[in-house]
Amino acid sequence: MISRAFYPHRTCVGETIVFDGEQGHHFARVLRVRVGEEISVAANGEPFLGIVEDVDGKAGLVRVRITSAIEPHETATKVFLVQGLAKGDKVETVIQKCTEVGAAGFAIIGATRSVVRLSPDKADAKLERWRKIALEAASQSQRDIPPTVHYFENANTLKPWLAELQPDAILFLDEDERALGLRNALQRYPRVDSPRTFVVVVGPEGGWDDKERSHWVEAFGALRISLGPRILRTETAGAVGVAAVLYEYGELGG
Amino acid sequence: MISRAFYPHRTCVGETIVFDGEQGHHFARVLRVRVGEEISVAANGEPFLGIVEDVDGKAGLVRVRITSAIEPHETATKVFLVQGLAKGDKVETVIQKCTEVGAAGFAIIGATRSVVRLSPDKADAKLERWRKIALEAASQSQRDIPPTVHYFENANTLKPWLAELQPDAILFLDEDERALGLRNALQRYPRVDSPRTFVVVVGPEGGWDDKERSHWVEAFGALRISLGPRILRTETAGAVGVAAVLYEYGELGG
Repeated sequence: MISRAFYPHRTCVGETIVFDGEQGHHFARVLRVRVGEEISVAANGEPFLGIVEDVDGKAGLVRVRITSAIEPHETATKVFLVQGLAKGDKVETVIQKCTEVGAAGFAIIGATRSVVRLSPDKADAKLERWRKIALEAASQSQRDIPPTVHYFENANTLKPWLAELQPDAILFLDEDERALGLRNALQRYPRVDSPRTFVVVVGPEGGWDDKERSHWVEAFGALRISLGPRILRTETAGAVGVAAVLYEYGELGG
Repeated sequence: MISRAFYPHRTCVGETIVFDGEQGHHFARVLRVRVGEEISVAANGEPFLGIVEDVDGKAGLVRVRITSAIEPHETATKVFLVQGLAKGDKVETVIQKCTEVGAAGFAIIGATRSVVRLSPDKADAKLERWRKIALEAASQSQRDIPPTVHYFENANTLKPWLAELQPDAILFLDEDERALGLRNALQRYPRVDSPRTFVVVVGPEGGWDDKERSHWVEAFGALRISLGPRILRTETAGAVGVAAVLYEYGELGG
């Protein structure tokens, strides 16, 4: 199965839809889909299979007839990742991997110990790049909805995002914490009918400083969480945290 | 805390030990530890803290006085990863990430759909490189015991390794499986006093072919396992599988 195409409108079985713009270009010219090929499509968050009916390589247009609806690939439990800004392409790796695992969205946040600083211009360019990576990873991993990606200069500017999410818990991964492991923490949030929302928080390479740590705990009510005595790199911790939460709620295949 | 030094013999609090060879060189000349600095040491699999008493940069010697024993960083539940040989540096990424997460060892295995083929010479060189990466990742993540790394040409030559491990279950991650999720599979192996051993099996980029799949199930008694409807890359699946198993048995911080 080739990567999934994202269509911004609703559709239904029997309808024919046309991909143009970036998606059309990508499928017609980069992936070079062929007439008669089966393709998976997420239309406005709903997954379908379709058959390619026409490809115009020059114009970057692909016409697809929708043949069947398929099971949803999104998790009911929503896990968002707050990732402290890290250097190099680490944030890109985090977004790619966690999108595959099933993260619902990302907030990249400047931290006291972040080695990189982003000027507003640079932040805009980075954000565009990160969103592209989230879209590509969502396509490759057959997600129905590409994760959202936001950038915040610090925890204060992130506050409205957090307020809107209203998570059941903010799981602040902390290598100095020993008392509360992730599994014990999640036992406080048993499975219920209405799906839960969690935020997993991972620091930059150097971790959070004491002031940031207190802010998350006192102002945001975050739980300081241990993932055990082994030290995870910043680019590994997010995927492990997101995977463990989704596992707990039966979202990794039940 | 700087990376952990591995000492091949037993030691105890009060003793003074000397690192020479590669470890001595690494700590004296690359990490440039200083006299009086605290350092963590795993001696024959047991973790300690120590104080650097002397550094000879030229000779690559570091003398450390052992000051205290610390809690073990190894998991009681052992999870081994079988990784289908993948191209580029993907196997290196897998070994690095899964070592951080806590994998006990790795078997890299040639698969029908592996794009790369390793001649015996090349396999030896690769194996040396993979073991170095496991050692470095074990040092950085503060493991007590660096994971083992083996290479097998195919599932037949891997058989004795598997026989020696006697795992409770072989968890064969399979994107074509929908019935049995990892969490439901692990419910068959409740926590008991004697720690359990699992093998997680991940295919190369193109997955396993039908013959390999049957071989794992019929000859080795592997369970075909789903991690859900989202498609994980080969370099992501191992870390997710290992993390989820360790999470289930309370090894990610309890």
